[in-house]
Amino acid sequence: MSRAEFPAYVHIQEVVTRDGLQIEPRFLPTGQKIALIDALSDTGVSKIEVTSFVSPKAVPNLADAAEVARGIRRNPAVTYVALVPNLRGAQAALDAGMDELNLVMSVSETHNLANMRMTPEQSLDGFRAIVEAAKGNPARLNGSIATAFGCPFEGAQPQDKVLALAERYLEAGLHSITLADTTGMANPRQVGRLVAGFRARFGEVPLTLHFHNTRGMGLANALAALEQGADRFDASLGGLGGCPFAPGATGNVVTEDLVHMLEEMGVPTGVDLPRLLELARGLPVLLGHDIPGQVAKAGRSGDLHPVPPGVRQPAL
Amino acid sequence: MSRAEFPAYVHIQEVVTRDGLQIEPRFLPTGQKIALIDALSDTGVSKIEVTSFVSPKAVPNLADAAEVARGIRRNPAVTYVALVPNLRGAQAALDAGMDELNLVMSVSETHNLANMRMTPEQSLDGFRAIVEAAKGNPARLNGSIATAFGCPFEGAQPQDKVLALAERYLEAGLHSITLADTTGMANPRQVGRLVAGFRARFGEVPLTLHFHNTRGMGLANALAALEQGADRFDASLGGLGGCPFAPGATGNVVTEDLVHMLEEMGVPTGVDLPRLLELARGLPVLLGHDIPGQVAKAGRSGDLHPVPPGVRQPAL
Repeated sequence: MSRAEFPAYVHIQEVVTRDGLQIEPRFLPTGQKIALIDALSDTGVSKIEVTSFVSPKAVPNLADAAEVARGIRRNPAVTYVALVPNLRGAQAALDAGMDELNLVMSVSETHNLANMRMTPEQSLDGFRAIVEAAKGNPARLNGSIATAFGCPFEGAQPQDKVLALAERYLEAGLHSITLADTTGMANPRQVGRLVAGFRARFGEVPLTLHFHNTRGMGLANALAALEQGADRFDASLGGLGGCPFAPGATGNVVTEDLVHMLEEMGVPTGVDLPRLLELARGLPVLLGHDIPGQVAKAGRSGDLHPVPPGVRQPAL
Repeated sequence: MSRAEFPAYVHIQEVVTRDGLQIEPRFLPTGQKIALIDALSDTGVSKIEVTSFVSPKAVPNLADAAEVARGIRRNPAVTYVALVPNLRGAQAALDAGMDELNLVMSVSETHNLANMRMTPEQSLDGFRAIVEAAKGNPARLNGSIATAFGCPFEGAQPQDKVLALAERYLEAGLHSITLADTTGMANPRQVGRLVAGFRARFGEVPLTLHFHNTRGMGLANALAALEQGADRFDASLGGLGGCPFAPGATGNVVTEDLVHMLEEMGVPTGVDLPRLLELARGLPVLLGHDIPGQVAKAGRSGDLHPVPPGVRQPAL
């Protein structure tokens, strides 16, 4: 069995201030959000999902979306993204000058109804309205397929159904696709097949993988995707985020652990890992709780330790 | 890029009562150790590393090795193993009727001196003395190569050096080999190469992979090994274990998370996952602290949730 080739470069897309913070027990003050995003802007990540323009009633932690989006310093090398659940959110994100809008619906009808309060057709109508509203604006439009690897209500989603929905996203005028493992149900074999199936059908359409580490498989799923050529990954500093169905479970794939794995495998990301680790190690102070990230605790594989006293060095 | 084939069956080898307990802050009473091993004996795992016949001064938590080894119920379908650091430990393990002895040294000279207080040649002499002492006894002899994927003092270990040491193990009369990532430094690319190199050189010599999740890569490393045909894995219930150089970091690969990943990928292990999860969920009570295992918290990917009230079922 021969080893697959890894991509020549992997884009790291930071989602901590959106997916990470939305589920936190307390509101992180706007100034601290901006400071965190500004610091992340200089780490070498390709994209930052800044916030979500969502109803403050639905996600109180992100009620300051517009202030945050307007308050951050913009590094021209970074694409600044906002999640938008509907036309009103999209308009606000465009007004705030976001580089990219991330539109989302679930491939599972039940999850879409529960999460977005819309049928699939209503969601797709909403996408088309956003495409229309964004005409003439330079912002890119990415479409996320939530529950692409399984729905907590319906279970597994057939690959054909996921790819058919991706097709409808592209027909509606979106530019790129994210396959999201919303509640951490993906396994590596499934990931390999879905990424290969996506590539076979959509060629070079930019594809992002968004994994959660809910059942410990986050990095294994990333590896399986890499082996099929995937080169864009969402991840969350410290592994913040989580899943309402899995209290106590870990959140998104940990940015610094993913970058560390890629670096150890010799796959370049352009990310300054020591700087990222510094930021991750600051999160417990900022948020008042421990974080799931492992490399922030253990150090990098290459961080060697002094030989304990009394050990005779070998002659070799 | 084509997907590698996975093995037809994977052997799960439980190490919680050895690698897991040795680093615990307090001594688990002998009766509770025996009860845990007896329960694990009925889960379908292939091997159980029962204990280590080591100096009680070095590892006080395992001072009851002989009592535990003699007190457990023996399921004929399970291979009961003891770790032995030297001839004296080996003799005690043979006297206790263990099915297999696990001999260990580090491929890193510095680590071997620090951990075993022996030079490599002294360790190999010890191995030969154990082979001699075990003559006529049906016990199998496995040799573990510690720090096979990196040493916390010396750093990376060349693949040729690891394979040359495996060769010397086999020449000394050992029957099977474990490649151990003692302090969690392995990455998937390295794992794939080393397993492929081992297979190319030693064919069907039984090979176990022993991973730690210190830097979050435990399951990704297992996946990389699987893709090269590896079919024997050590793992620790709940992810107990750890690394003295990484306080707060996770321990061994989590048995139930590994079994869950394999099951989700359709790779049979013969392990009763629900029963294993029950045992894992009992560990926090037994030990007085939380465990790193994720599936014990989140449930299996296939454990569906009721649809929240007020959600209209889609017409499809």
